[in-house]
Amino acid sequence: MALYEYATLTDKFESYLASHQPYGSPDSLYEPIRYINELGGKRIRPVLLLMAYNLWHDDVTPALPAALAVEYFHNFSLMHDDIMDEAPLRRGKKTVHTLYGRNNAILSGDAMLIRCFDLLLEAGRSQDIGASLCSLMTKVSLEICEGQQLDMDFEKMASPSEEQYLDMIKRKTGCLLGTSLKLGAVMAGASHQEVETLNQFGEMMGMGFQVQDDFLDVFGDTTVTGKQKGGDILRGKKNFLFVHTYNTLSPPDQKAFLKDYAQAADDQDFNPILDLYENRNVGTYTQKLQTSFFEKGLADLDTLNHLNTLPLKELAVSLMSRDH
Amino acid sequence: MALYEYATLTDKFESYLASHQPYGSPDSLYEPIRYINELGGKRIRPVLLLMAYNLWHDDVTPALPAALAVEYFHNFSLMHDDIMDEAPLRRGKKTVHTLYGRNNAILSGDAMLIRCFDLLLEAGRSQDIGASLCSLMTKVSLEICEGQQLDMDFEKMASPSEEQYLDMIKRKTGCLLGTSLKLGAVMAGASHQEVETLNQFGEMMGMGFQVQDDFLDVFGDTTVTGKQKGGDILRGKKNFLFVHTYNTLSPPDQKAFLKDYAQAADDQDFNPILDLYENRNVGTYTQKLQTSFFEKGLADLDTLNHLNTLPLKELAVSLMSRDH
Repeated sequence: MALYEYATLTDKFESYLASHQPYGSPDSLYEPIRYINELGGKRIRPVLLLMAYNLWHDDVTPALPAALAVEYFHNFSLMHDDIMDEAPLRRGKKTVHTLYGRNNAILSGDAMLIRCFDLLLEAGRSQDIGASLCSLMTKVSLEICEGQQLDMDFEKMASPSEEQYLDMIKRKTGCLLGTSLKLGAVMAGASHQEVETLNQFGEMMGMGFQVQDDFLDVFGDTTVTGKQKGGDILRGKKNFLFVHTYNTLSPPDQKAFLKDYAQAADDQDFNPILDLYENRNVGTYTQKLQTSFFEKGLADLDTLNHLNTLPLKELAVSLMSRDH
Repeated sequence: MALYEYATLTDKFESYLASHQPYGSPDSLYEPIRYINELGGKRIRPVLLLMAYNLWHDDVTPALPAALAVEYFHNFSLMHDDIMDEAPLRRGKKTVHTLYGRNNAILSGDAMLIRCFDLLLEAGRSQDIGASLCSLMTKVSLEICEGQQLDMDFEKMASPSEEQYLDMIKRKTGCLLGTSLKLGAVMAGASHQEVETLNQFGEMMGMGFQVQDDFLDVFGDTTVTGKQKGGDILRGKKNFLFVHTYNTLSPPDQKAFLKDYAQAADDQDFNPILDLYENRNVGTYTQKLQTSFFEKGLADLDTLNHLNTLPLKELAVSLMSRDH
């Protein structure tokens, strides 16, 4: 078996993406799509899909349309989420709604979601499994919408519990990573058990990854993350660090913390919150949690001992050690 | 053959819709969907789908999920278009973004689009045609997005030509009516020729209907339309009446007209524009055009003389004579 590494699969995916950029009339609908596609990013979802397919097949070419489909879904959700979060930057560049206007970002996002289903139909055509692939995607898509809605609803509460927060990120991030692997495995003809194990591994990776993202928001290096430092605090966004801190404080201290968190956004100064997080070792706690997700995911992979899951493990390890 | 009339099919659809309202967690994602579903409207798209199916089958029950799918698509597009147009009212009630906020309207709209594909998969399952139904829908969905984008692009120009405007409404409105009939016919097992003829009839009806909508914006009775009188003028929206008028004026008069149109929006007074339209018989021209679309559509139906298309004809006639 020819097992491809992350870098090789990324290259294969990037050249497929570049030669399948969308054009049409009016171009104003497609230009924002090409823009977000070219913003880059780690291409984790399509690469996971290709890696899963590659566990059974040397040639990953037949899985490329499905890999593009999950990247389209991901970019659709970024386009719409960035409007909702009023985020100015994405991967160090202007967000779509900042550059092309809110209405264009809504509509081009819609077009990406539609194209995602179209690509899955294409991916499933030769094996006559287009409907199954789409059906997997509609299920997870609704879960992702639910996750985003929970995220918005949490903003209106003092704070969700840690458990509620983790359920939200499972739906918002974990599900799509799991489904990317699932789609690749289904296309490859994997057993139900194999498909589900890969899905679980993906979910755990996604959760670890999201918790890490929250950690990097204040503890990360802007030149690496490409995001505004402390952006969550400056926008008053209640991420995992906030939720954990809130739930470990006494009720009077919770009140004071809420006030300070709002003040930090008003003053556009995240330092008082960063100091509090450092005093309370919130960073250490968060890193431990993210590690436990990655380890659970790796343990899932170990049950697939009849397959060579080394590239998936390497990917997990490299994600875990993302430069802080 | 039991051929159902518009009213009967509407009833069947309404009760299916009511018993299939979506619930889930968090409910804040699903409440706006139930709200827009309950706003009513003429249910033209699902009824067209059922009528097409009913040309070949007495029992329309198997087509109900697909009928719900096209209504979901339509309501998704209304939810997002209303944000883009900043429309305060829809069918005499508050629009979703006015009532639930813009972010909720974006996200619940996304969920409706996803659910549309899910319903088509359900509709196609027993005949194993879910992928074909979805594929028809992804094609038309992208055309509709293109139509909406053209509509927005036109706002930034002095005026499109009449031809460009009609191409836009074909994509924005005509295509979905055509596709509704197409989906019903495909599910019923119609021939390629029959499917295409019904599609053309639907497109013509859609265009006639949209031109009529533009006409009713200023010439209609608010208590019947449920919309703000002269809403297009007050929002500076360049509808068919505007486009036709602009293209029949001399360049200096075009300039003056553009100025007056902008002034009407500033003053929130549509009367000067209405007077101009009346002086130039724009209403008469528009009504003639809408009639020609309906007549072309009816001529298409006449070629299907081996089928009893009476209910479709009656529907077309009743749409044509919508109370002015």
